[in-house]
Amino acid sequence: MAVLEVAEFLHVSTPTSWVEQASKLQPLLLIDHANCERKAASSALSMIYRYEEQCDFAVQLSRIVREEMRHFEQVHALLKTLQIEYVHLSPSKYARALHSYAREHSPTKFDDLLIASIIEARSYERFELLEEVLIGRVAKLYGKLKDSEHRHFLAYLDLARRLEEERVITARVQDLLNHEAQLITRFDDQFRFHSGDPVDTTG
Amino acid sequence: MAVLEVAEFLHVSTPTSWVEQASKLQPLLLIDHANCERKAASSALSMIYRYEEQCDFAVQLSRIVREEMRHFEQVHALLKTLQIEYVHLSPSKYARALHSYAREHSPTKFDDLLIASIIEARSYERFELLEEVLIGRVAKLYGKLKDSEHRHFLAYLDLARRLEEERVITARVQDLLNHEAQLITRFDDQFRFHSGDPVDTTG
Repeated sequence: MAVLEVAEFLHVSTPTSWVEQASKLQPLLLIDHANCERKAASSALSMIYRYEEQCDFAVQLSRIVREEMRHFEQVHALLKTLQIEYVHLSPSKYARALHSYAREHSPTKFDDLLIASIIEARSYERFELLEEVLIGRVAKLYGKLKDSEHRHFLAYLDLARRLEEERVITARVQDLLNHEAQLITRFDDQFRFHSGDPVDTTG
Repeated sequence: MAVLEVAEFLHVSTPTSWVEQASKLQPLLLIDHANCERKAASSALSMIYRYEEQCDFAVQLSRIVREEMRHFEQVHALLKTLQIEYVHLSPSKYARALHSYAREHSPTKFDDLLIASIIEARSYERFELLEEVLIGRVAKLYGKLKDSEHRHFLAYLDLARRLEEERVITARVQDLLNHEAQLITRFDDQFRFHSGDPVDTTG
């Protein structure tokens, strides 16, 4: 699996309707984005314990935690600058849906790493799209953050490859990506950073 | 409560027997210390969500998370340099005992902050003792880390004070410190960074 480009990795692109909605709901986007950074840090931190036996994973995961928290602080600073009041948001269904799919369908030891890789890839793809449609400070921050997401996407894939042979990893990642594609393209009445299509095309 | 000195804050000093044991069990001390840094980061991270309504807490807690993870990486680097193999250790009973005591005895909203403050104060006190008896790289690292623990001890107290008036905070912190003193002075057959007295003096 010589995957380096996110566009080749993901099975589907984000629907245009999601990008249009995001540009109209910028305060909501930023608040949920702050939550996503916190949850990404929390997920990397729990993997240090989950993959405790692979003690060479620890430092790499710890650096990811620090980077996600740094982003969290940057988004918080932006919320303050833009005078957007922080409000509680129910969590996005996306990550939870990926993890419950994995738990139900022949869970593997490296699923957490592959799911983290997929989430980072999707975040990169959305940052790239948002950088084009948003303006000012938000566009500038998203342009900066997307490079980290790309690094994390590859880092998690690389960690999974240290646990299992390529063939097995490839099969599993394709399975998870098929499921991820459904989450991204299905109708979603709740807007979040990782939400699905806001337009119901099922008639 | 004009507490600034850890020695005045804590109700008891670490038993000399613990310090003697720690100097003999340095590999175990360092491995458990790495776990403590990870758990301190995890605790600060969960408090961002726990105190979500106090959104001005978020950035301060996020910086603590980053600092704890940086320490985690420093301890891991030291384990590597000293060729100490990482092994799984059952968690110390200390933090869990403090939290369960709080849950059972009139829990308050700011207990998590006070417990974090107490743990940081105890860690500072032990780093200071260990810096004296250990040598080389470990002593040097502990000398550096203790300043952060002292800052975190005060930072958590300060956050609690933003939630409740001084009188209430003082009463609760004294109650928790009484309980902490028991954990530190009681016989403990398991050595950890925060374990009790290794000598059974009850006869």
